[in-house]
Order: sequence, then C-alpha cells, then structure tokens
Amino acid sequence: MPNEVRGLGLEVGKLKDPDLQRLPSTLRVGDLSERDLLARIQQYLPPAPAWLLVGIGDDAAIIEPERNRVQALSVDALVEGIHFDRAFVPPDAIGHRALAVNLSDLAAMGAAPRLALLSFALPPALPLEEFEGIIAGLVRLGARHRIHVAGGNLTRSPGPLMIDITVMGSVKRRQALTRAGARPGDEIYVSGTLGAAAAGLRMLQMKSATNKSTTTEVTDTNRGHGATRSKEDPCAPLSSVPSVVELCTHRYLYPQPRVRLGLLISRNRAASAAIDLSDGLADGVRRIAEAGGVGALIEADALPIEPAVRAWFQERGLDPVAEAMTAGDDYELLITVRPRTDRRLSAAKRSDVPLTRIGTCTEARAVLLRDKTTERELPRAGYDHFQ
Amino acid sequence: MPNEVRGLGLEVGKLKDPDLQRLPSTLRVGDLSERDLLARIQQYLPPAPAWLLVGIGDDAAIIEPERNRVQALSVDALVEGIHFDRAFVPPDAIGHRALAVNLSDLAAMGAAPRLALLSFALPPALPLEEFEGIIAGLVRLGARHRIHVAGGNLTRSPGPLMIDITVMGSVKRRQALTRAGARPGDEIYVSGTLGAAAAGLRMLQMKSATNKSTTTEVTDTNRGHGATRSKEDPCAPLSSVPSVVELCTHRYLYPQPRVRLGLLISRNRAASAAIDLSDGLADGVRRIAEAGGVGALIEADALPIEPAVRAWFQERGLDPVAEAMTAGDDYELLITVRPRTDRRLSAAKRSDVPLTRIGTCTEARAVLLRDKTTERELPRAGYDHFQ
Repeated sequence: MPNEVRGLGLEVGKLKDPDLQRLPSTLRVGDLSERDLLARIQQYLPPAPAWLLVGIGDDAAIIEPERNRVQALSVDALVEGIHFDRAFVPPDAIGHRALAVNLSDLAAMGAAPRLALLSFALPPALPLEEFEGIIAGLVRLGARHRIHVAGGNLTRSPGPLMIDITVMGSVKRRQALTRAGARPGDEIYVSGTLGAAAAGLRMLQMKSATNKSTTTEVTDTNRGHGATRSKEDPCAPLSSVPSVVELCTHRYLYPQPRVRLGLLISRNRAASAAIDLSDGLADGVRRIAEAGGVGALIEADALPIEPAVRAWFQERGLDPVAEAMTAGDDYELLITVRPRTDRRLSAAKRSDVPLTRIGTCTEARAVLLRDKTTERELPRAGYDHFQ
Repeated sequence: MPNEVRGLGLEVGKLKDPDLQRLPSTLRVGDLSERDLLARIQQYLPPAPAWLLVGIGDDAAIIEPERNRVQALSVDALVEGIHFDRAFVPPDAIGHRALAVNLSDLAAMGAAPRLALLSFALPPALPLEEFEGIIAGLVRLGARHRIHVAGGNLTRSPGPLMIDITVMGSVKRRQALTRAGARPGDEIYVSGTLGAAAAGLRMLQMKSATNKSTTTEVTDTNRGHGATRSKEDPCAPLSSVPSVVELCTHRYLYPQPRVRLGLLISRNRAASAAIDLSDGLADGVRRIAEAGGVGALIEADALPIEPAVRAWFQERGLDPVAEAMTAGDDYELLITVRPRTDRRLSAAKRSDVPLTRIGTCTEARAVLLRDKTTERELPRAGYDHFQ
C-alpha cells in the first residue's frame, strides 16, 4: 500500500536503492503494519515474470510450470541464535545466507532456480533498517540467480528472528541430480575450497567477543594489496587480492551457491550423485555413500584448502583437515563421477569454480579418511543429538 | 534410519498408530538426532505417489507437475505464543491447524491440494510425545485432503516452537479463484458459520486461566445428548448434538479448510472473487473490495451465527456481530458471485457446508455494515500495527 507507506513520511520511489533511502533509525518493525512491511518488501522486487500468473497479495501464488521439466522443491530455515548471530552478521548477509542455503539445495539437484516463498517471523523490536537490509541482501542474490519472490508470509516472533524460505527450480527429468547413484569405483569431487568459511566464523566470533576491530587474534598477517568490494554489491566476489581475514569472513558471510556449476554438471549428466555440503564434507560423503550403498576413501592430502587458510588454522593449533571435514558453512557441491566419464566434467571444469578429485567410492561400506600414515573413519558431525 | 530409532528401544513398526506406541514420556526432541526425528515423521507418512519422483531425504524433492494445470503455492507459519498456546491447544490440534491454515489458502484459490513441505523449529525441551502428536494431527488432516508430505526441514529453536508449512495445489488455469474480480452488483456469500471459533478460543482461555475443568464461565448450559468424537479421528466433525462448549472449542481447535467447497466453486466458475477468512470477515470483505475496486454493503442480520453461539456471546455482554466480523479463526471462504449466475452455485450449495448470502458489492468504495438502525464502516481488524 504505497499510500500507507507514504503516510510514514518515507518516499517509496527511492526504496529500490537502500543506500539512497535513509530511514529514521528509531523505527522498528513493530511500528508498521503487516501491509506496510509487505509493501516495503515489494519495493525491492523486479517486475513479475510472465509465468507468475498471480503473485504476492492473494491467498496463494499461481504459477505456470515450465514445459518438459520436473520441479525441485526445497525449504530451509535460518534461526537467530542457531544459524546466525546478529552481533556480527550484518543484515544483508543474513538475507543473503537465507536464500543461499536454499539455492545451494537447488544447485545440488542440478535445477535452475525459479521462485522463492519467504516466511519471516519477526521480533517487533527488530529495527526496520535491519529488516530492509535483510530483504536487500536476499533480493540481490536472488537477482543474480534469476529467482523470483512469488509470495510469502510475515508474522511476529515473541523470540528469535526466523527466516524460512521455500525455493522451486526446474530441471529436465533425466538430468536431475540425486544423492543416490554412486557405485564402487566412482570418483569423488568437491567444488571450490573447504574450511575458509569455518575460519571466517571463528574470526568473526573472536572479534565479536573482544568487541574490538583489531586484536592479536584477528590481526591480518597475510594482507595483499587490500581487497576492495563493489559498493553496489557487497556480496560480490572480492575484486583484488584479499587478506586471509577478508577472504574467510567474506566466505562465511556471503556463501556462493554453486547454481551454475550444478547446471553444467546436470546438463552434461556428468555426475552419478550430488549433494551440497551444508552440513560439512564428512556428512556429505556419508550421505552419498549411504544413499548409493557404497563406502568411500577420502585422501586428506587432496582436500582443497587454501594455503593461507591452512596456515591460519595451524597457527592456532587447529587441524585444517579436521576443520575442512566438519565445517558446515562451505556450501560447495560434492559429486561422484563414473570412471571413464570424466570428459563429461570438462564443461564444469571450465567454469570459474574449481573441481578437485578428493577420493573414490569403494565396495566396502566404510567411510574412511586416508593421510600419509593412517586410515581412519570420517568424523560423525551432523549425526549428533538435536540438542 | 530405522536402526537408530530401534536403538532408542522403540518399535518402529508400531509408530503408524500413535495410540499403540506409548513412548517413554521423559524423552524430549533434544534427546534425538535430526535423523531420528525425521525417521519418526516418515513413519506416519503413506507411500509416495508416482508424481513424487524424489521425496524426503535428498537436497530437494523432485515432482512431476500435473498436466494442463497451473500450480497454487502458499506458505503460512504458526508461532507458539502468537498463533497457539500449548497450555490449552493439544499437540494434534497444533499439527492440524498448521496444515489447515495452508489448505484453506489452497481452497480459496480453488486448487486441489497436492504436496506440503514442513519446516519445524523445535525447542529441544519439547516432549517427543508432543512432537509426535503434532505430526499425527497434521498427517491425519493431510490424508483426508490427499496432500502428500514431500519434504521439509528440522532445526532447533532457542525460543518458541514454530511450524512453517508450504503447500502446493493444482488448478486449471481458467478456474483459479483470485481476490480480484468483484464488480458492483456482485453478491457476497460466506461459507459455514462465523464466530464459533472465536468463542471457542475464549472458552479455552478462560478454562486455562482458572485451571479447572468446570467453572461458571464455561459451564455448559446448552448441552445436548452429549457429543462423542471418533477415537480414531478426534478432528472429525462431532458425531452427535454437541453442547455449545464442545461445538465452539472443537471449531477453534480443528478448523476445517473448505477444500471441497473451493473446488466445486472453481470448477463451476461460480465466483468472481474468493478469499479465505483467516483474518476475519471484515478483513476479507475489505481485501476483496480493494482488489476489485468496489465497495461492499454487509447485512448484519444475514450473518450466519449459530443461535447457541449468539446466545453465548450475549450472555457475556459481547456483540455477536462484532465478534463474527473480526474473529480470525473461522477458516471459512468468502466469495462474490455475479447476479444471474447464482445457478452456478447450485453444486456448491448441495455440499455439506452451507453458503449464505450476506451482502452486495457496491459502486461506492465504502465498506459498510448495515443493521436495522444504522450503516457504519466495517471494523479495521487486520490493519493494525505489527506489534
């Protein structure tokens, strides 16, 4: 309701650029009606695509399915205090992450993103500026992956902020990637690098704990020429050589879902199985192994861990391999590939995200990590109690 | 993982009937892993339909869209302390409501329910028995409306219990009902009766406040032969003449989404606009009027309020009409119908849910309530601050 928003003394037309729109910083979401908040979200959204027959503002969205495609559907929630800490995760990074974790699920199915439904439970005391920052981060990532917000729900929360997002994507029936399908002898690949996001989280936690911007713990001993970030798009990849702190905190705050890579792998039918590493590498390997009825042997030395990240862990007495195995914040893809079909990976390998072979599926059902001296079972992170 | 659930000393095979499966009442959801909890949900689910190509247990569900249909998609959340109070809403009623509010959205679009994605944020201290009760209530209502659980998400909550459900339904493109479409002269109908759920909530709140099962406030002065409820299905309609307390509390605890009625109206193209009354009649009339660019005149005397409910309000000094206008717990449908196309309603009128004409759409944009002596604006419930 533009009129009602104007009634608050805010100029609606400028909302599309949050930098231009300085809000009274004292406003909180509880000061607005549900309709006002909805209007504020809608200001950030691009025009509806033709397949969205009925969008926000009715009892349900009505969409036209894409021809000759099946649909991938997933839901994932971010809960304040469990998945993010508002003390050191800025609003746009919260919005970015809320959508990124869902896009990562679509990527792991090889599906092209199509639409998202947003469900927010908002503490009334949440500053309106933070709410808009969350929306801005979410919409920005959505625009990059051409996913359209088709509807949603807003409610109050008497406790933490919660963001629940449902996404839908399209994929040709025979190209959908699943967790099942690995066979003994299949090679195991992982995208990107591992562990930087976990290091970034530790850095942010340490900085938050000491509540100072420079401490010995987070002093940057590996600074390059100084990373610069596009002002228009703070979640874009760093544009020059970043320091290890910049690299890691950016990796934690703005995980990049591997949507394009998932599409390349799916279109070339390059993978026998795929999963995203939302719960860490060890968990991903176990699930792929279970679903395929195989075991796995992972080579510790093959794990793609950036040298600066490896050094940062080691300087703090932490085992980089253990960190890379169990950290849940790398939203990379894990895939298995039949031997002698590696050439199908060539298109994926030419993408801007590296793929690294880290092991092999085995007949024996054990899931092992091998380093120079030992073979041991993979850690069981992700299998703990819900507590 | 059946084995892991067996590891808890529980017999998986019997889980399908919650009455047969007496759990150690001390177990809490925090004592189980996410996988165990997922396994417990899965035990309640019927076999997957053929169109569900990949179900629970992968990064996303993969579904085959129905031919020659568009899809209706909606999400709605229930938050403990906002939408329900565990002190007086039993677990199965929480699960029932969580799905019912979503099915009601599909009903208002004239869509046939197809699938649901469940996203739970669970306090670790939630008794496992209550969690299973929620699932049981949800699955039972789902079975009645042939909606299949295709996936979901489980996470911890450091605060209240939250249940976020996304539903998808199918409808022929030209049969989808929307809020827009009312024209001056269209007649306004409402399904079922109004106000009983609101009275039921008050009864439950009073009973909970006094913490006794019989008080003067909730003494049942209108008792019939005593209502009995099917033991297998406590959310089924009451099977004999209920007392006003039974009628109202049942209406509040187990709202019946008007799925079948929505389908009958949509297939006969009987309505020019439709909405569900999740935020009350006054809100629904306003939204239909706004979306259609019309006004509305509602006849207070025409509102379908059960005599016993009317009396219950009056005995407590409350205005039954005001209660029926603003109460948000009636999940009835509001539709507008072009004059001289009433015969298209005949199939809907033969359904087991009555349809009552309560007013007319007007050229003048005002939204008015007329009784014997006055005409006044409809209350503005639902337009308040988010606080």
